[in-house]
Amino acid sequence: MRNIKLKNLEICTLGSHCSLQVLKGAKDENFSTCLICEKKRYDLYKRYSFIDRILLVDSFEQMLEKPFQQRIKKLNCIFIPHGTLISSFSPDDIEKIDVPFFGNRYILRWEADRILKEKLMVAAKLNVPRAIRDKNDIDRLCIVKLHGAAGGRGYFTVWDRNSFDEGIKKLINLGSISSEKDVYIQEYVHGVPVFLHYFYSPLCNEVEFMGADRRYESDVDGIARIPSKQQLNVNIEPTYNVIGNIPLVLRESLLEEVYKMGEKFVRAAKKLVPPGIPGPFCLEGVYTKDGTFITFEFSARIVAGTNLYVNGSPYSEMLFGKEMSMGRRIATEIRITNSNNQLNKILT
Amino acid sequence: MRNIKLKNLEICTLGSHCSLQVLKGAKDENFSTCLICEKKRYDLYKRYSFIDRILLVDSFEQMLEKPFQQRIKKLNCIFIPHGTLISSFSPDDIEKIDVPFFGNRYILRWEADRILKEKLMVAAKLNVPRAIRDKNDIDRLCIVKLHGAAGGRGYFTVWDRNSFDEGIKKLINLGSISSEKDVYIQEYVHGVPVFLHYFYSPLCNEVEFMGADRRYESDVDGIARIPSKQQLNVNIEPTYNVIGNIPLVLRESLLEEVYKMGEKFVRAAKKLVPPGIPGPFCLEGVYTKDGTFITFEFSARIVAGTNLYVNGSPYSEMLFGKEMSMGRRIATEIRITNSNNQLNKILT
Amino acid sequence: MRNIKLKNLEICTLGSHCSLQVLKGAKDENFSTCLICEKKRYDLYKRYSFIDRILLVDSFEQMLEKPFQQRIKKLNCIFIPHGTLISSFSPDDIEKIDVPFFGNRYILRWEADRILKEKLMVAAKLNVPRAIRDKNDIDRLCIVKLHGAAGGRGYFTVWDRNSFDEGIKKLINLGSISSEKDVYIQEYVHGVPVFLHYFYSPLCNEVEFMGADRRYESDVDGIARIPSKQQLNVNIEPTYNVIGNIPLVLRESLLEEVYKMGEKFVRAAKKLVPPGIPGPFCLEGVYTKDGTFITFEFSARIVAGTNLYVNGSPYSEMLFGKEMSMGRRIATEIRITNSNNQLNKILT
Repeated sequence: MRNIKLKNLEICTLGSHCSLQVLKGAKDENFSTCLICEKKRYDLYKRYSFIDRILLVDSFEQMLEKPFQQRIKKLNCIFIPHGTLISSFSPDDIEKIDVPFFGNRYILRWEADRILKEKLMVAAKLNVPRAIRDKNDIDRLCIVKLHGAAGGRGYFTVWDRNSFDEGIKKLINLGSISSEKDVYIQEYVHGVPVFLHYFYSPLCNEVEFMGADRRYESDVDGIARIPSKQQLNVNIEPTYNVIGNIPLVLRESLLEEVYKMGEKFVRAAKKLVPPGIPGPFCLEGVYTKDGTFITFEFSARIVAGTNLYVNGSPYSEMLFGKEMSMGRRIATEIRITNSNNQLNKILT
Repeated sequence: MRNIKLKNLEICTLGSHCSLQVLKGAKDENFSTCLICEKKRYDLYKRYSFIDRILLVDSFEQMLEKPFQQRIKKLNCIFIPHGTLISSFSPDDIEKIDVPFFGNRYILRWEADRILKEKLMVAAKLNVPRAIRDKNDIDRLCIVKLHGAAGGRGYFTVWDRNSFDEGIKKLINLGSISSEKDVYIQEYVHGVPVFLHYFYSPLCNEVEFMGADRRYESDVDGIARIPSKQQLNVNIEPTYNVIGNIPLVLRESLLEEVYKMGEKFVRAAKKLVPPGIPGPFCLEGVYTKDGTFITFEFSARIVAGTNLYVNGSPYSEMLFGKEMSMGRRIATEIRITNSNNQLNKILT
Repeated sequence: MRNIKLKNLEICTLGSHCSLQVLKGAKDENFSTCLICEKKRYDLYKRYSFIDRILLVDSFEQMLEKPFQQRIKKLNCIFIPHGTLISSFSPDDIEKIDVPFFGNRYILRWEADRILKEKLMVAAKLNVPRAIRDKNDIDRLCIVKLHGAAGGRGYFTVWDRNSFDEGIKKLINLGSISSEKDVYIQEYVHGVPVFLHYFYSPLCNEVEFMGADRRYESDVDGIARIPSKQQLNVNIEPTYNVIGNIPLVLRESLLEEVYKMGEKFVRAAKKLVPPGIPGPFCLEGVYTKDGTFITFEFSARIVAGTNLYVNGSPYSEMLFGKEMSMGRRIATEIRITNSNNQLNKILT
């Protein structure tokens, strides 16, 4: 276990993605809170009274500098990783940051790398979309995605080789990719998108289903308001840039399978990437017309959809009987494991 | 009145649909709680600490066995019916189950039977969609529905006789129906779907508007993300399988009519199916472009959309000034009528 | 400053739009509450126990009569304006109503008048949609809007001069407009609609971001469920009548710009329409695929989308650490400024 003093722990994260929720939750559990904040965003974060300490940086790159890491360690911080960490740094860099991470920092590589990601989902025996290896095999609606967590930017749909080649050309011209090797092709799964928020507690060896959302993406979630006649008159190519999230609850008869998927994922993660996945994660996919969940992505850390539930979700209310955001759930786990001298179970 | 002891009442329901919300609400009102749980779902329901007693069954069919019913009665249970009861049993069977039901068990037949359902909606003077009696009269967009509460499965849209015949053929091949007599045709109402959650308290003779939602259905709510060009290239036939629910609030100027509809429905139910409709019900329809609500279905019991509001809805907050889910509202009504020795007003 | 006694203040509004939320919030802050209620809606509003006093009127027109205004003044009321005030009265009439208004009554004219509205948005340096001055310049998807706050009624999309002329002819025939001068044309902005709820406190000179929603409009938000094939077979012309609102949260990295926009708007309002915009306002627009917010409207007072957050929103929870609706926020501001003898800063 890393050298963590057991008193005066401070919860720390990067100022973006879900940092407000995370630090609000930490404060609700009586932790000190610390935000690593880009100068340009100081005006935003200074407004929130639950942030005790703001470490101003020119850019998040500073996380990679040793003196900065030592400063964080001296403050006795536990660092909560989220999507901005993954989109800002390479897995190699993330593993080298010498600060105690909540959760398994080594599994973040499996989120960022397309091949490892698929390997873990298959090992967990989740239903995944058919991968199309050769662009000549595109014979139905498919979706083309970029590697990494770019928040849906650059995704496009294709239905044959020509439409694929066209889309690639555009992305290269935009400088988003350098060749078609930077993308991968999946069968487009017909159904409704759902993001499932989980928390795994190693202490109790329990998976908790905390809530669900659907993303609100621009401009794909706007084309619904344009009638087909107009769509065909003007050229529509949807983009998938995440703007926000919309809350939802699931049909109760789906919950049994929701829990099974979460447990299968936890088991596979323990096997392939020890110590597994303590803390929050998310399975991201589509419910098809027969109620099957096809997982097309996972996040191996807290997702931004949980920002909906700062006041608790219907599901966390039923598990805890009080307002429990994912950020607060993380803080609760830290508090309890610390009082049991088992922080080593949840930190890397 | 059925033989209910007035002390140590236990609230009981089938483990599905909205059972978590119902038993959570019962526990919040200090009742003991009892879940009739299929063995395969034990792993789900054992997680929730507000469930005091779990009665394991191989299948819900066991509800129809006398010894099982006697066991439930001995436990002094009040049984809360929901959608799974209706989709699992015939109205005849439901009426025979010898256990005290919350609400009017006899009205559940009117929900399950298409003809009775229409009769009650018409008697309540609700605006209903035009029914198409003859498939040769299909001259605009229409929706074809199956009898019973199958959660939207099997619904399809048609625009002429040919498209109707094709759809029927498919459902017969799938084994979903045996002939076209198993379906009915309604004019497709253009507008936005809304589900209105009501509670009627016989004690105060008051209708309460508790909240609203819209369903999230697969794959019909996914096609919005596929541009018209791609939709026309690949064959799209939407299906209406309920996956979840999304919260919403209504324009305040619509509430007056919302209450009027609820009250008309309660009056018609009292007249046609004594004792009427104590407890929760739902009017399900579409708001057209001029703000008129066209009711295409009702549920004569709690609906799953209320699962959104485990923490209370904006509307229940304004009525009660505290977190009041529909499940808790039911429990509150039982508690109060029991303390007034008037359980006979709400049980059948 | 108008003649307000500092004790026994009563909060008053018109019975529609967001009046329930406003008076509930006032009651939570221990104010007396007063509703100006059309007789036909008495049955709705009498249900809510937080309404202390109901002033019945035949129509809201009565607000324009001196004796009625004196009655309100005698009750020591502060009047909270909302959308129904703006759609019921002309700006001239609104300015003449001799009752103390919360907020700046003079800015309501800038909301109602298309030209002034655009002027204020431009002065605030918000991104606005390209205005099309000449119908012959329509060369892409455009939206045609009516002046005033009619809740989206009458809006239609066009893609060339012919489709514009057709749409105008229909609105004239319906009696909605008298000539094409009653409409204005904007480029249709591709993206996802979002409404941003702000509160500006002159006391602390702070903008607060309180929440976000998207509208649920009939029938435009229903066409998403009709496949393109069927849409093309039946003639679809979407309408934009607001039926309700759906909650959402924003990507955290957008919040910085959200606050900047709010602050720019407050500064421009202070300059162009003293005393500016104390209290709630809303920026209404679309997030494009690159995450830019294009503002197409503003509301210079509380919007109905805040009705979603009677129990508080994720954002108000993070600012206040308790359930804080926009209605309650207004009441809080009145309470605090009153105790500081600074009501003149927030009343006109």
